[in-house]
Amino acid sequence: MLLSHKSIRKYKSAAVSEEILKDILLSAIRGSNTGNMQVYSIIVTRDAEMKKKLLPLHFNQKMVTEAPVILTFCVDINRFNKWCEMREATPGYDNLLWFYNATIDATIAAQNACIAAEMHKLGICYLGTTTYMSEKISTVLNLPKGVVPVTTVVLGYPDENPELTDRLPLEAVVHYETYKDYSQDEINELYKEKENLPLTLKLIQDNQTDNLAQIFTNKRYKKEDNIFFSKEFYNFVLKQGFKLN
Amino acid sequence: MLLSHKSIRKYKSAAVSEEILKDILLSAIRGSNTGNMQVYSIIVTRDAEMKKKLLPLHFNQKMVTEAPVILTFCVDINRFNKWCEMREATPGYDNLLWFYNATIDATIAAQNACIAAEMHKLGICYLGTTTYMSEKISTVLNLPKGVVPVTTVVLGYPDENPELTDRLPLEAVVHYETYKDYSQDEINELYKEKENLPLTLKLIQDNQTDNLAQIFTNKRYKKEDNIFFSKEFYNFVLKQGFKLN
Repeated sequence: MLLSHKSIRKYKSAAVSEEILKDILLSAIRGSNTGNMQVYSIIVTRDAEMKKKLLPLHFNQKMVTEAPVILTFCVDINRFNKWCEMREATPGYDNLLWFYNATIDATIAAQNACIAAEMHKLGICYLGTTTYMSEKISTVLNLPKGVVPVTTVVLGYPDENPELTDRLPLEAVVHYETYKDYSQDEINELYKEKENLPLTLKLIQDNQTDNLAQIFTNKRYKKEDNIFFSKEFYNFVLKQGFKLN
Repeated sequence: MLLSHKSIRKYKSAAVSEEILKDILLSAIRGSNTGNMQVYSIIVTRDAEMKKKLLPLHFNQKMVTEAPVILTFCVDINRFNKWCEMREATPGYDNLLWFYNATIDATIAAQNACIAAEMHKLGICYLGTTTYMSEKISTVLNLPKGVVPVTTVVLGYPDENPELTDRLPLEAVVHYETYKDYSQDEINELYKEKENLPLTLKLIQDNQTDNLAQIFTNKRYKKEDNIFFSKEFYNFVLKQGFKLN
């Protein structure tokens, strides 16, 4: 099942039952987490009005309003801090280390939710737009200080059956014992299949670029946009009370 | 299976077959990832000498040398950048946004690997020590600029069968439509079960503290340690070429 994962971007309107949603959420919280402190929260969106508010913040990807369930996974030290303060314990988790730990834990919970959903024949798709628009999403979801959205998953019954997307060969990504840096010949070899897929050749033609790499750097994820959204994200994480340096 | 996950800290010496390891690694790279750019790498450690070098960096947790396989999941823009530069494309991924995206993607790959391992009746345990000791671990694993270890997973055949660990009730972690902040009564109610577990009561007695929260703040994850390791991690991420602010 893990080997046949495909992101689903078209959903039937059929609801996800309470029982299945509960299994997905319970699977999420059973994942490993740092010190079993559970410094994350999950926001469930099913209300049509809420979805409409989130839609533009996820760059108008239709699945946000079409999928029956949206889950936003968040770093959350607010609950843990409140508990500590009520127990005369002084928390010290508003720093990079714990923002990072909590990000990992929230992501493990998210991936467990995705796999539980797929076990129930549901489709899922991650929305990377969450980090781009973290402040506005947080306003809609009413996230207090100490809480930052990490990633969003939409889920529901698939209304499409796309092909498996490509991956680099395993040897491009896996190193044994120590990291073996790449020669130019190795880069050419490892990217050859990806660069020659019919889909890639069509993309290059449609985008009128020289090659696939330029589609990433000049069209999809441009340096100036990355810098802009990095600053936005940094400022928001700071505003939520985390010191990142 | 997701609902019965337990971290395993004692392993049999039996090796993991090449076939099973390959399935685990293939499952890891099939996970969702931002833009299908695969800006992560996985380092496999099986060599006894390498494990001995990693052991103190993971605070001498015995499973590092006892488990047959250790996987270190890393943020990696080195490979992607090399490819871009060879294609006259200017990469712009050395910033917070992409460090964060790649962290999420590496973690999704890690959790897929864990679930694939558990499907093969293997046990797993995450090592949070990776962020504490990122620079020294990177030296041992020979990680170049652009590569930062995110988390480590040990895996092998279990030599123990521990009880399920507790979790907060689902309603502590899940919010519907908007985040509902916690009143003091709610915090008391949500932490009641955890605070009254026999294991918790024993821990409080052994540690001679007033309550469980103080074990976290005064013993396990102290503010001054968190600040120290945050600075170490920040400096190392910077050294690897990422600008976090």
